[in-house]
Amino acid sequence: MNIHAKDARISVTTGALPASNKVYVDGALPGVRVPMRDVTLHETAKEPAVRLYDTSGPYTDPAAQIDIYAGLARPRSAWVLARGDVEEYEGRDVRPEDNGNAGAALAAEFPVRHRPLRAKDGKAVTQFAYARAGIITAEMEYVAIRENMGRAAQKEKLLRDGESFGAEIPDFITPEFVRDEIARGRAIIPCNINHPELEPMIIGRNFLVKINANIGNSAVASSVAEEVDKMVWSIRWGSDTVMDLSTGRNIHNTREWIIRNSPVPIGTVPIYQALEKVNGVAEDLTWEVFRDTLIEQAEQGVDYFTIHAGVRLAYVPLTAKRVTGIVSRGGSILAKWCLAHHKENFLYTHFEEICDIMRAYDVSFSLGDGLRPGSIADANDEAQFAELETLGELTRIAWDKGVQVMIEGPGHVPMHKIKVNMDKQLRECGEAPFYTLGPLTTDIAPGYDHITSGIGAAMIGWFGCAMLCYVTPKEHLGLPDRDDVKVGVITYKIAAHAADLAKGHPSAQARDDALSRARFEFRWEDQFNLSLDPERAREFHDQTLPKDAHKVAHFCSMCGPKFCSMKITQEVRDFAASGMAEKSEEFRNAGGKIYQDIARKEEKLSNEAL
Amino acid sequence: MNIHAKDARISVTTGALPASNKVYVDGALPGVRVPMRDVTLHETAKEPAVRLYDTSGPYTDPAAQIDIYAGLARPRSAWVLARGDVEEYEGRDVRPEDNGNAGAALAAEFPVRHRPLRAKDGKAVTQFAYARAGIITAEMEYVAIRENMGRAAQKEKLLRDGESFGAEIPDFITPEFVRDEIARGRAIIPCNINHPELEPMIIGRNFLVKINANIGNSAVASSVAEEVDKMVWSIRWGSDTVMDLSTGRNIHNTREWIIRNSPVPIGTVPIYQALEKVNGVAEDLTWEVFRDTLIEQAEQGVDYFTIHAGVRLAYVPLTAKRVTGIVSRGGSILAKWCLAHHKENFLYTHFEEICDIMRAYDVSFSLGDGLRPGSIADANDEAQFAELETLGELTRIAWDKGVQVMIEGPGHVPMHKIKVNMDKQLRECGEAPFYTLGPLTTDIAPGYDHITSGIGAAMIGWFGCAMLCYVTPKEHLGLPDRDDVKVGVITYKIAAHAADLAKGHPSAQARDDALSRARFEFRWEDQFNLSLDPERAREFHDQTLPKDAHKVAHFCSMCGPKFCSMKITQEVRDFAASGMAEKSEEFRNAGGKIYQDIARKEEKLSNEAL
Repeated sequence: MNIHAKDARISVTTGALPASNKVYVDGALPGVRVPMRDVTLHETAKEPAVRLYDTSGPYTDPAAQIDIYAGLARPRSAWVLARGDVEEYEGRDVRPEDNGNAGAALAAEFPVRHRPLRAKDGKAVTQFAYARAGIITAEMEYVAIRENMGRAAQKEKLLRDGESFGAEIPDFITPEFVRDEIARGRAIIPCNINHPELEPMIIGRNFLVKINANIGNSAVASSVAEEVDKMVWSIRWGSDTVMDLSTGRNIHNTREWIIRNSPVPIGTVPIYQALEKVNGVAEDLTWEVFRDTLIEQAEQGVDYFTIHAGVRLAYVPLTAKRVTGIVSRGGSILAKWCLAHHKENFLYTHFEEICDIMRAYDVSFSLGDGLRPGSIADANDEAQFAELETLGELTRIAWDKGVQVMIEGPGHVPMHKIKVNMDKQLRECGEAPFYTLGPLTTDIAPGYDHITSGIGAAMIGWFGCAMLCYVTPKEHLGLPDRDDVKVGVITYKIAAHAADLAKGHPSAQARDDALSRARFEFRWEDQFNLSLDPERAREFHDQTLPKDAHKVAHFCSMCGPKFCSMKITQEVRDFAASGMAEKSEEFRNAGGKIYQDIARKEEKLSNEAL
Repeated sequence: MNIHAKDARISVTTGALPASNKVYVDGALPGVRVPMRDVTLHETAKEPAVRLYDTSGPYTDPAAQIDIYAGLARPRSAWVLARGDVEEYEGRDVRPEDNGNAGAALAAEFPVRHRPLRAKDGKAVTQFAYARAGIITAEMEYVAIRENMGRAAQKEKLLRDGESFGAEIPDFITPEFVRDEIARGRAIIPCNINHPELEPMIIGRNFLVKINANIGNSAVASSVAEEVDKMVWSIRWGSDTVMDLSTGRNIHNTREWIIRNSPVPIGTVPIYQALEKVNGVAEDLTWEVFRDTLIEQAEQGVDYFTIHAGVRLAYVPLTAKRVTGIVSRGGSILAKWCLAHHKENFLYTHFEEICDIMRAYDVSFSLGDGLRPGSIADANDEAQFAELETLGELTRIAWDKGVQVMIEGPGHVPMHKIKVNMDKQLRECGEAPFYTLGPLTTDIAPGYDHITSGIGAAMIGWFGCAMLCYVTPKEHLGLPDRDDVKVGVITYKIAAHAADLAKGHPSAQARDDALSRARFEFRWEDQFNLSLDPERAREFHDQTLPKDAHKVAHFCSMCGPKFCSMKITQEVRDFAASGMAEKSEEFRNAGGKIYQDIARKEEKLSNEAL
């Protein structure tokens, strides 16, 4: 089914998903061309194709030329340059320590080198600054079209019966609505000016709930080829953004390969690389090393940075009595630095300088929750909430500097303590988008933490969380491989979609309904093709009924041909229709109350029997 | 690891789970001996063994002699006979149609035949009747001990910070509390007097949330050996009850093998077998055939029957405009019968006679939701709620007859419509236990419906649902195999446990805390052994770090040896402890406010910088 763009080293999965056509919707602004996926249904369905949001990039477009060694096309360059507020310059040179002094183990450099852009005179070239200035950018129009998923074409009445907990989701997303949400700080479009391969997307409570997949190598496992493959694989199944959490050697080169081939925003945690530059000794971290790393990554095109500026010195002792202490890698590094120097976190004291760098490239903040709970026992404690309050303070500073901001959240939280996280985040952080890891609703299922956390993710997404960071089955046990990435992504697509349904998103239910109709009408192929994972759906079905004839059979292996509730229901419908026709006169004569009368009679009978 | 009790045909998995000892707690009443599982921790933990609820029966007791061809020991016979209210009699003969006229394909009969018991003079021999009469039975004491899970031994203060939504869970479960809950109809102990192999368990909102696994053959797939194996396999991983939903041939014989070897309650849907007896033609069903089937199954020892008595004639037309009509097999059979005869459902009109049969054996009702929604579009509609109201009416009739009752619920329900199901069920059905299938929170993920439904199951469990019927990854696509059964059970154990945590069950968090401590202290073996699936946890860990030395390593493959947040946190703790000691005088001199002062200074600095 899938064609692999192969090479001695790097291979990614390409080709359309089953029965799917890549379509593009043009915007009014130059170069705005938004990809969508149309799933064609069987002719017996007598329904138009179902239009879906498409994160997969050019990899699923049979017309696209994919060359991992050249990177994706860079259509966004024109938009960025047209604004006239950036300058090209000679970027920072790559140094041996950027790749952890890999020496003989150095991964290949990406073959093409692009000169970086930055804002002229250190000005803000951020979507936030444009939005505040009343400017609708191409990126804003792009996401507006994307979010509507062809909503205008839907014949059915919009279903709006959700409980949105205060979210204000309009029936139709306009570019002006997008601009306004960004200007209010309620949404972000992570889009570094040095990532022109990007297909813009938006993160905010009044838009579709998004998901993130984490990839990245460690000192122990995995290579550049594996990470590029995982990135392409994760967006094929629906990941909206990807974080490169590499911690070993070759961090710089791995990231370059990923960004140049990524149509989705790439996030990083710069402190990981900064720590590598000081040989893993947290105490040796300095503002200068960190600053250098920010610029290095901003020039490469990283779209959002996790910055643990809320791990303040005063909060560290609050974690000493926890069951699981500090589980965030960034949080623990900074806590150690703070205690070693008995000084305030240098990310906090240098926060404005960080803002100045990030706004020059439009890198968005993902303010890290370094003190998030790592166990049910530690959920919602003083350390966690103290940090959240500081993140609120930092949000306002970032906004004053013109930088886009989202806020990271936990972690491990039992169900009854989830909503207070969401409510407090909205209050403390001025409705900046929330971006949580799960949360995991119990600690007792290592190997299944995609599920323990998928439960919490669906709930917090419903309550208003804008983006859900996936957890794979390998969480706590090892680095996810390709299969784990897929399971993690699908699980989180379920959580995000369940949240969209519950929030009352106006077009979310269209896919459920189309699939349910296919199920009811035994259109097996349509049921597979409309599912989040057509391959698995087909494979599971075929394990018991492998023949092609069974794809059109009006039964399945659960009940067999004689005993099928769906088949019987169809007969009940037919029977009811004919029976109703026969009885219609009687029905009219009785004033349309025949069943009620029977019900009453039967009830009387029943009461008598008592 | 596991020893198989093998034979040419039937093989089941036996042997203890890793690091686990089967222990028995004796009650005050004769013969009450409650099995539990003690998980031994590594000596460095300096913690006692963690005591867990154990559903696995004698199969995990190395001292037990397992012989599938003889069935389990029958210790409960003594309790039943001691009450002096039952009589042994010559049971109904097995007829060819009981096994779907299997002919040459007839499965072997179970080798041992026991004469059935029934109540003398048709009296109620139910736990409900005893409870109302003020009698504490051996079954009641058994479940009281079982539910406490060694709670008395817990040193730590009971954690009661949940949100119980009106559930009244005591700190400690006494036999009298059990009796009272059963007498009020708020809990049931499904325990047919002809199932003396049973280890009693309780289903009710004020007890641990339970789960059910469905097994059973169909006309298309699977054999007796597979079904017995799946039953033993499902309880090994934590299933509290098992439903045999067989629909093909050999229904009678398959069920006999299952019950004789089952320590957990077995539920069935008798209409499935009744339909086989009339060759699959729903219109040909009669009260006589159904009655005969109830007695057949009651004599075998089925502990609860799903009875779709709420599918009333008047409600059938309410389903005609649904996206997915009637998806319950039982519901669709009865709907067809009702329409074919244009008569009220014979299960409704004969409901009191059904009660009379069931109370003579103490078979519990599981009042079926034949009109449950089969898609998001159909959730909470008029048909569904009309039926639920009727189930409330029938609950009161059953109670008046002395029969135990629980109520089945949906199905497919988006998150924002789940709680109203629970609230309405409690109100309409006088707080009788609710038993739901999921619910699935979206329709778009066939192949992952254990997850779409695990989300809904965790939530409705939290809201008060007493038992969660599992959904496997094969739902909608095929019959679950052994692997699917395990994934379904583990997913639902997660949902049930997450619900117990959120409800504030007094001892639920002990396992989370023990596992989290093991995780934080790098006791990898303890982490595996305390998890719901030790095999998978170990396997996932070993995929990247296979060596035994890594089981004691203070790092894992996610970050590698140099860069581990848990390790750093430990260092932070040590550092903080020593640092705090050094600074203690200064700290005291400053009136214990040193961090606050620093925080204030930093804040000032930050404000100045603004």
